Amino acid sequence: MRINKERLKKHIIELSNIGYTKGQGITRQAFTPIYEEAKEYVKNLMEEIGLKVYEDAVGNLFGRLEGNNKNHAIIMGSHIDTVPNGGIFDGSLGVLGGIECIQTLMENNYTNQYSLEAAAFIGEEGTEVGGTFGSRCFTGEVDFNKEDFDYLETVGISKEDIKRAERNPKTVKNYLELHIEQGNILYTEEVSIGIVKGIVGIAQYKAEVKGKANHAGTTPMHLRDDALIKASKVINQINETVNQLGEPLVGTVGYIKAYPGAINVIPGKVEFTIELRDMSRDRVEAAIHLIKEECKDLDLSIEKLAYEWEVNLDQDTQDEIEKACKDLGYNYKFMYSGAGHDANPISKIAPTGMIFVPSKEGISHAPEEWTEWEDVDKGANTLLYTLINLDGE
Amino acid sequence: MRINKERLKKHIIELSNIGYTKGQGITRQAFTPIYEEAKEYVKNLMEEIGLKVYEDAVGNLFGRLEGNNKNHAIIMGSHIDTVPNGGIFDGSLGVLGGIECIQTLMENNYTNQYSLEAAAFIGEEGTEVGGTFGSRCFTGEVDFNKEDFDYLETVGISKEDIKRAERNPKTVKNYLELHIEQGNILYTEEVSIGIVKGIVGIAQYKAEVKGKANHAGTTPMHLRDDALIKASKVINQINETVNQLGEPLVGTVGYIKAYPGAINVIPGKVEFTIELRDMSRDRVEAAIHLIKEECKDLDLSIEKLAYEWEVNLDQDTQDEIEKACKDLGYNYKFMYSGAGHDANPISKIAPTGMIFVPSKEGISHAPEEWTEWEDVDKGANTLLYTLINLDGE
Repeated sequence: MRINKERLKKHIIELSNIGYTKGQGITRQAFTPIYEEAKEYVKNLMEEIGLKVYEDAVGNLFGRLEGNNKNHAIIMGSHIDTVPNGGIFDGSLGVLGGIECIQTLMENNYTNQYSLEAAAFIGEEGTEVGGTFGSRCFTGEVDFNKEDFDYLETVGISKEDIKRAERNPKTVKNYLELHIEQGNILYTEEVSIGIVKGIVGIAQYKAEVKGKANHAGTTPMHLRDDALIKASKVINQINETVNQLGEPLVGTVGYIKAYPGAINVIPGKVEFTIELRDMSRDRVEAAIHLIKEECKDLDLSIEKLAYEWEVNLDQDTQDEIEKACKDLGYNYKFMYSGAGHDANPISKIAPTGMIFVPSKEGISHAPEEWTEWEDVDKGANTLLYTLINLDGE
Repeated sequence: MRINKERLKKHIIELSNIGYTKGQGITRQAFTPIYEEAKEYVKNLMEEIGLKVYEDAVGNLFGRLEGNNKNHAIIMGSHIDTVPNGGIFDGSLGVLGGIECIQTLMENNYTNQYSLEAAAFIGEEGTEVGGTFGSRCFTGEVDFNKEDFDYLETVGISKEDIKRAERNPKTVKNYLELHIEQGNILYTEEVSIGIVKGIVGIAQYKAEVKGKANHAGTTPMHLRDDALIKASKVINQINETVNQLGEPLVGTVGYIKAYPGAINVIPGKVEFTIELRDMSRDRVEAAIHLIKEECKDLDLSIEKLAYEWEVNLDQDTQDEIEKACKDLGYNYKFMYSGAGHDANPISKIAPTGMIFVPSKEGISHAPEEWTEWEDVDKGANTLLYTLINLDGE
């Protein structure tokens, strides 16, 4: 049994035309009319093949095929919203891939043990209420003290709606998400399938290096205390420390500002951001500790802005994905996800698996985002086989 | 013979009250009503002691005491405009010190050989038409293709006015400028008088380091091309190269920007400025060449923005300043000026000398700008003795 490669391709291309502008990719953010149009398209696909379609109170869309074990479902999902000027696969692949798997099973007269659902969670890419909004509502992970209810009111969502959207965890057997990698590991190593072991935790910091602002002409080199020279040493040290600690740790300084920032004034202060991602919070703390230690003469201070916990995905589900790859003869690799997904919150309420396919040159969130159709096909077949394995448990 | 220390102090404080706001220093920019008020104050001082006062067509102010050699003048000057939130000595010291010297000579019934002038040049600190505007008009150094005549029209200055303000170089025997150092060399070394050998040339560049923007989570360290890591190495290399080449070269990176500049995106491009100052254009070119050479694997490109030529001050005038210091028993040091002054353009039409006094902690262009009154006194006496030496030639 194999999915219908051409049909899946057709659906991906049709959906990508909604919100598309030539040369500028797809802009299809949650809670906008163009998003509703995309949801309508997906809803029709679900209805056409005879799924029971329902939308929850916050706008998550589900298409369901009842199984013998009616109240226990395997959900395959992702999202159909995009970043501004995004690509055609991010999110859509997991939603349309899920529908394709159910359709394939139905065409093959497969008798499903569990109920099977294809899902499109709303607002994964982030709006005024952060990312993975729909899946956080689904799992009851919304912080009622923090959310921007003024914004939510403008899009017609109330506190009651959020409460109503929460799913009883007992009704979910597994969650599976097929997604593009958004990195360049599979592409570089020419591997078709990534089996995601976990999703990294993200720690964000604001760093400051102090020096002394002074006249760039009248201050000789030996009397300077240049904050940018010191910050440059810190940035190099961050890179070295992160490399020393090794994968999956990554560290990035993405933003920097020197004060006062004039061509003829020695910087007296430099601010920059540090972002560290790893599967272990201890390793992240160790990295910060080492960086501070190595830079103790550089007037560095580091303040934590945010920490998002790492997620270890279900081992049994990983095994079933691996078995699927072996049965299909696809080359595969166990790996971590450096980006967040709907799988983050959902993994907290159900055994969750993620399947990655290669992103050309690691590019995503851009019109150039690309995955070869052959890899799309392999990803969807891996999803199909994993689904069958889990349904047979 | 000595200048009147208390009188000079009184004049400096009186002038500093014009445009002063408590805690915020002095804001007295050229071509503003508060500047006119300051000019009126200086004009009155000149008139009170019997100088022949005249203002040229662009607003430079002169007070003249005729000498036997009537058409050949020794001019002592500087400026009375300030930067926004500036200090009380920058510029004012040279103008009021010049008046004080002439007044002291008159009180001592000194018979001057040459005509003596105290001058306040307009717009040294920079307006829409750049810095040292008045002294550039005085020396005919205004570029009629570049100046912003729309702006000049709003302050009542025409092309004709600029042409009329040009002084016949033959009428100027010497130009002397007493000024605060604006650096921390004299203050750190506890030397009272700096004899300026030259004013450094200023070369300004825009630098760019290219990398590849990418997702800060999904891109492992070994697959990154992080422009900010590379830029940090370049900034350290600039510092090392400048230190290797040695004084008086200074090099500063004052401005930096990473693109796209987001906490979770690896920088794909970093822009920053480089400013180099030295007495030799060849050494500046050599520094840039070395930096490029050392950073040849870092995707660095450097584009020249501007070059202001270095100025070597007159040797004979330096000798006379040194003699003055020796006669007065002051400790002194030959040094370069890292900042530009009215002496820059004027040195091109007349033998020019500059006398520096210490700036506390090197601070200037700020309310905290400070010079001990004892050093102010020493500076003015050095100016007086140098004037007498030059008048006796």
